[in-house]
Amino acid sequence: MNGYNVAILGATGAVGSRLISQLAQSNIPVKNLKLLASARSAGKVLKFKNEPLTVEETTPDSFKNVDLVLASAGGNVSQKFLPIAVQSGAVCVDNTSAFRMDPDVPLVIPEVNREALKRHHGIIANPNCSTIQMVIALAPIYHAFGLKQVIVSTYQAVSGAGQAAWNEMLHQAQQRLNNEAMTAKITPVKGEPHHYPLAFNLLPQIDVFEDNGYTHEEWKMIHETKKILLDDMDSPDIKVTATCVRVPVELGHGESVYIEVADKKATVAGLRQQLTRMPGIIVQDDPAEQLYPQPLTAAGKRETFVGRLRADEENPGAFNLWIVSDNLLKGAAWNTVEIAECLVEDGLI
Amino acid sequence: MNGYNVAILGATGAVGSRLISQLAQSNIPVKNLKLLASARSAGKVLKFKNEPLTVEETTPDSFKNVDLVLASAGGNVSQKFLPIAVQSGAVCVDNTSAFRMDPDVPLVIPEVNREALKRHHGIIANPNCSTIQMVIALAPIYHAFGLKQVIVSTYQAVSGAGQAAWNEMLHQAQQRLNNEAMTAKITPVKGEPHHYPLAFNLLPQIDVFEDNGYTHEEWKMIHETKKILLDDMDSPDIKVTATCVRVPVELGHGESVYIEVADKKATVAGLRQQLTRMPGIIVQDDPAEQLYPQPLTAAGKRETFVGRLRADEENPGAFNLWIVSDNLLKGAAWNTVEIAECLVEDGLI
Repeated sequence: MNGYNVAILGATGAVGSRLISQLAQSNIPVKNLKLLASARSAGKVLKFKNEPLTVEETTPDSFKNVDLVLASAGGNVSQKFLPIAVQSGAVCVDNTSAFRMDPDVPLVIPEVNREALKRHHGIIANPNCSTIQMVIALAPIYHAFGLKQVIVSTYQAVSGAGQAAWNEMLHQAQQRLNNEAMTAKITPVKGEPHHYPLAFNLLPQIDVFEDNGYTHEEWKMIHETKKILLDDMDSPDIKVTATCVRVPVELGHGESVYIEVADKKATVAGLRQQLTRMPGIIVQDDPAEQLYPQPLTAAGKRETFVGRLRADEENPGAFNLWIVSDNLLKGAAWNTVEIAECLVEDGLI
Repeated sequence: MNGYNVAILGATGAVGSRLISQLAQSNIPVKNLKLLASARSAGKVLKFKNEPLTVEETTPDSFKNVDLVLASAGGNVSQKFLPIAVQSGAVCVDNTSAFRMDPDVPLVIPEVNREALKRHHGIIANPNCSTIQMVIALAPIYHAFGLKQVIVSTYQAVSGAGQAAWNEMLHQAQQRLNNEAMTAKITPVKGEPHHYPLAFNLLPQIDVFEDNGYTHEEWKMIHETKKILLDDMDSPDIKVTATCVRVPVELGHGESVYIEVADKKATVAGLRQQLTRMPGIIVQDDPAEQLYPQPLTAAGKRETFVGRLRADEENPGAFNLWIVSDNLLKGAAWNTVEIAECLVEDGLI
């Protein structure tokens, strides 16, 4: 085989542009690349490895002879087209939430549960951005010390809400700096009735509210974390709770994570050792040098950065961590392409 | 008596300007007001109730015939001058950290532990901004249901780092919007060796680092919370841990707080009832209406706003809360003036 026919579904969005560049930098042999989007975006010309490619409208026929689909065009679009793509023989890595909790769909962070790929039936789900960067840090701790409880508060960048929200937040910031009133038509959540400025503000709503008062983003963090970590393990359940907050940052989610491990003798040094050995993690933790993860320094990097490692001195076995990663790379495009690399390497396409 | 001679120490700072306006709006009868600051600021003219007042340099003689001092000029300044002020007969309400942990100094949030004022020896300490807004919300829950553990992650506005840091962050934002490189000489912590831009970024460092990896801000939240809540109560200890993060917000700290209460039968409805009854608290919590506390809507208000009340469904007796308050009002100037109002009402000056 001299390469794969690849299609990117949702090629024109903030994640889509990064899917193209991450694929270009990957070791996946691409024979042909098809850029798919909505009718509105069809005709746009984008570049892949310096070659111009015209964006096509997605139709049921788009997936003929396609071996691999990387999808990030929204849950509805994935729900509509991925079963068709699978039917016509493609393997799909889906960056939407459409299939994540489907028991037949592996939910994968390659450094954590690559072996789950073997059980795929055509669709592999990419976890939510805020889940990925937390779970890649928690997995080595879980394996070494056990994990009883996780309490996370997120500080999520606007790019996770899409390019239009990102542009709006920058416009709001300029309004404020011009001493004009800030206006909002998208933030915090496109499609919801009320909109509030995000620039120089904090909005504790990401996605819609569930009946129990949690947002759907919080629900995702709780349930996806369990699906990934407890995947094919005969382990007791891990308690997880989350509070998700949108912050006026462009790129890079922050997470303040409190964990209680099962091994009461676990130490900060032990946790640090596990994190240092973990592929995809960079420990950035030196208070004497004021070294700690920041969105500005994590943006554009594939790795997840962990710092501010501290023991809760009143609660043996409990620790605080501060985790930052580029939500559009490890949180989306890079993890998706990395899954595809693993599928290729493991002969699963 | 036809009023008090009042001095404001540190009148020209971000908190100082608000001490002047909060005092003007208070029910304290002011006979004479003296505005004190460093030599550099002496000569500036500020207004109190539309009357121009010239700022004077603080000297040991400044406190003669002064009945009440409101201090917010930094810990060193309070340490140097407040004992002199007390010596000359003044009562001092100090918004710095200089005396907060002194066992002879009451640490007071009037709605929570007003009775501690009776034990003052001339100095009353105003708690740290991030402590005040958390403890005013936790106190009624603690009294009704007991409190076993508190895990807080803060989202702290730049105004808490002073007017110069605030100006710098706005300048950084304009640099970014002009596509220029952002520069930093103050953020995150004035006087520390390294500086990083805060605009469109997150900086998990407020104040200097302690030996155990916690920042001094985190240390303050842990120890001040205990001093206030456990003040004159024969109660078991409360576990507290904190992660403090500076965010690109101008005014209004956010706090994601996870609590475990002693009464396992406590419900969200029960917590809501306690919070609704608490003076100084406004419950803003209606997911159906997308109603939740935000810095932009809390700025300029004296109250503390609480929302996103949720039970941890996997951990009976545990709850998540989202708390926002104007860090320069309830977190600083208003709580200081409110303490002074109580001292006057209770005949303690």
